[in-house]
Amino acid sequence: LLWKASLVIPRQYNDPMELKSLQITCSRDCGLQPGRLVVVGVSGGADSLALADALAALGYPLVIAHYDHGLRVDSSADLEFVRNYAASKGQAFITASGDVASHANTHGLSTEEAARQMRYAFLFRVTREQSAQALAVGHTADDQVETVLMHLLRGAGLDGLKGMTWRGMLASFDQDVPLVRPLLGVWRTETEAWCQAHALAYRVDITNRDTAYARNRLRHEIIPMLESYNPQAKTHIQQLAGHLAGDHRLLAGLTDAAFHSSLKESGDGYLVFDRKQLASLDPALGARILRQTANRLVAELRDFDSGAVERCLAAIPGTPAGWQADLPGGLRIHLDGDQAILFTWQADLPGMDWPQIPGDQVFDIKPPCELTLDNGWLLRLEEISPAPSLSMVMENQDPRQAWIDADRLTAGLSVHRASVGQRFIPLGMITGSQKLSDFWVNVRLPQRARAGWPVVFSGNEVVWLPGFRPAHTFRVTPGTKRTLVLQLARQPEQ
Amino acid sequence: LLWKASLVIPRQYNDPMELKSLQITCSRDCGLQPGRLVVVGVSGGADSLALADALAALGYPLVIAHYDHGLRVDSSADLEFVRNYAASKGQAFITASGDVASHANTHGLSTEEAARQMRYAFLFRVTREQSAQALAVGHTADDQVETVLMHLLRGAGLDGLKGMTWRGMLASFDQDVPLVRPLLGVWRTETEAWCQAHALAYRVDITNRDTAYARNRLRHEIIPMLESYNPQAKTHIQQLAGHLAGDHRLLAGLTDAAFHSSLKESGDGYLVFDRKQLASLDPALGARILRQTANRLVAELRDFDSGAVERCLAAIPGTPAGWQADLPGGLRIHLDGDQAILFTWQADLPGMDWPQIPGDQVFDIKPPCELTLDNGWLLRLEEISPAPSLSMVMENQDPRQAWIDADRLTAGLSVHRASVGQRFIPLGMITGSQKLSDFWVNVRLPQRARAGWPVVFSGNEVVWLPGFRPAHTFRVTPGTKRTLVLQLARQPEQ
Repeated sequence: LLWKASLVIPRQYNDPMELKSLQITCSRDCGLQPGRLVVVGVSGGADSLALADALAALGYPLVIAHYDHGLRVDSSADLEFVRNYAASKGQAFITASGDVASHANTHGLSTEEAARQMRYAFLFRVTREQSAQALAVGHTADDQVETVLMHLLRGAGLDGLKGMTWRGMLASFDQDVPLVRPLLGVWRTETEAWCQAHALAYRVDITNRDTAYARNRLRHEIIPMLESYNPQAKTHIQQLAGHLAGDHRLLAGLTDAAFHSSLKESGDGYLVFDRKQLASLDPALGARILRQTANRLVAELRDFDSGAVERCLAAIPGTPAGWQADLPGGLRIHLDGDQAILFTWQADLPGMDWPQIPGDQVFDIKPPCELTLDNGWLLRLEEISPAPSLSMVMENQDPRQAWIDADRLTAGLSVHRASVGQRFIPLGMITGSQKLSDFWVNVRLPQRARAGWPVVFSGNEVVWLPGFRPAHTFRVTPGTKRTLVLQLARQPEQ
Repeated sequence: LLWKASLVIPRQYNDPMELKSLQITCSRDCGLQPGRLVVVGVSGGADSLALADALAALGYPLVIAHYDHGLRVDSSADLEFVRNYAASKGQAFITASGDVASHANTHGLSTEEAARQMRYAFLFRVTREQSAQALAVGHTADDQVETVLMHLLRGAGLDGLKGMTWRGMLASFDQDVPLVRPLLGVWRTETEAWCQAHALAYRVDITNRDTAYARNRLRHEIIPMLESYNPQAKTHIQQLAGHLAGDHRLLAGLTDAAFHSSLKESGDGYLVFDRKQLASLDPALGARILRQTANRLVAELRDFDSGAVERCLAAIPGTPAGWQADLPGGLRIHLDGDQAILFTWQADLPGMDWPQIPGDQVFDIKPPCELTLDNGWLLRLEEISPAPSLSMVMENQDPRQAWIDADRLTAGLSVHRASVGQRFIPLGMITGSQKLSDFWVNVRLPQRARAGWPVVFSGNEVVWLPGFRPAHTFRVTPGTKRTLVLQLARQPEQ
């Protein structure tokens, strides 16, 4: 009896790895146009191979791109495998390789993250050079579930819980080239089934089973445990991501509208809001506007915490004009009559009280010490022990504090003005150096603040630009024995 | 050096179990008014005891209420313990007990759910009788984290992920009495520390460690594993709930506004929307409106699935007038020119094609069979094996299908019209019976549909009112050996 099935399984889903379903996904969700070139990132695993194969079957002209991370002994075998696959299908093939370990080391990244950065840099470059309509990658529903859980545990809000999108931008790699994920609704087992059904051999990455990697622990320990609690857990989390993506879009629209209706004016490094308007909003909407403002003023600010947001929201309705407060990321809020002004401290607003060196003096500093600067600022230096964790140093979002490796210093520390022509090696710059004058232009420090800005030196070398960046030369690394911490702070109110 | 701490711990939270913090929470978040009576549900555990103690310290007049579930051998010891606590503090004490096992059995509930229902029914009744301003319960941040995870794994959207609220209504128990949770920001270890600091002994529920209970598995297996992955996991999930509660409120406001601006008219069991307006909305907003509509038309409809929503949204923009489709929960959508009408099938809309019995005939039915009714309907009967899981039967949200225990039938099944004065024992009614004519009034079946409505009988007893409820007498229980399934369905289109 046919109707029996409908009793036991109330809903029926189409096989998402059927070509017909995939075609709808490619055009409706991923926005791919038929007949136009797509670059596919292919590792050689079942997911990316099934993707390339299915896209070819749907008639998309392809370029197969493979990045050789050189991390495993058999990585060149992967490369040859993908090259042979492309050749057997008569498809264009582009490859490159890089030294992931060295990239990880110099940038203080995990191996996974370094590999990811180098791979995407390559894939986006190829996509742009080939004038392809998009870069396609083989992320599956399993990857989506892992991403949602990772964000949940890391403390993301809706932005993270919504997971990956069918089509989106990775602006840090390329501002224009879209990244599409046609397999986001397909489970890993289905890509393997596709490969089997189409007699495609695929490579198995043996490191996938190494639970030393965070994602593998999720995959092999945590998700199976969640499934033992609720067998539908994976499906539920995947569907959740889809719903939350819609909710997120609605909230983004709502936030944008409220943002623009309460914004009175904006300029380099500052935004001026109508205080009454902000105060009249639902606090959750006010919080969203403040977060959006912070992200607009400081790129990649992840750590704009709820405490700071709540303090602002509490102050906005009734606090007397003239109130100011420091916020994370070197931001500041100033309430001025019917205005609420959010600004970076580089912003050239009237009455800015930047830290300045009194005259041409040179101050030698030894830990522990506290140096008084002009305009109500202090500079503190101390040796800390035990050393802070490397991840804490790497994820530091506060430009007003810096950790340095005491043993790398070639001379004692001093604080004084920089001379004309002074050069600086900002953290992350591996070769060469930069003129301090160029750095000031880049960070948009107003002209009138530059000459008197306090700079921490070791001999002639810049160690820290307080409020901006430490120097690469003296950075903390896994080998650091003695750590100095520098902090720029406001003097306590008298 | 004082400032050292601020380097290592960038944010400082106040102790949420300090009286000052708790006072703010009680008034700002829970909306409690000073000096007015509060009923506190006290189990005798550290959480509820710390709550009662802290609320008393904050000066709230209290009534201590304890429900004796009688589930454990030592439950009367809990009762005496709480009674003594109240007496020692000079506080009013009210208690009651009930037969949880029997409630669970007759309603097909888990023991946990049955205990919860009986406890809340008691606590709300006491709160109402005492004219207290609110019922306070001792849910902690740990409970919040467990709730969020449970919803995540069960497949809830934002509504579930936002967790419990500081102040809210449990409308199924009481429409007016607010439930408050002042300890939602306090961890369980902090309530234990409170009890220790205030020399309060507390009872430990030994069944808390029994991982046969779903929540205990979360608490003792899953959460510790998540914490081994990210030590801050619990804090992150707790903060997430707070953020999502705000997001949820914003979306609810947005949905309400769009709902009312696209609603053209409404009546008993139906809502008429402007089709163009619905079509112009973001699909995520359209989906929210459809879900809200479904919940308005059918109380406690949990299972309005995305598939149904998507089919509606796809049809609304361009489908020719006259299109109709069945939706879960006995709902139906009809597109009529510039209108989209959502209605329960009880709704007395023109042209409704209700299932009707042809004339006064009696149809004897034996499994398997398919009986043709008037207006394009079918009634199907089959014995199914293996039996469906009890939870599937209990959670059935489809009024067009019913499972019955074949061995409880006293006579063969037949389908015919009901006679005047016919009585019925709807599922869940444990004592007595109801006049069918009253039932029709309750479910608002239009007058003109009643006389010809098909009813399934066993002898003179009603077995099923197709489209509404099965009878209590023939329900499926854990002891059921042979299960019959009945289904009301539309005839396939010719």
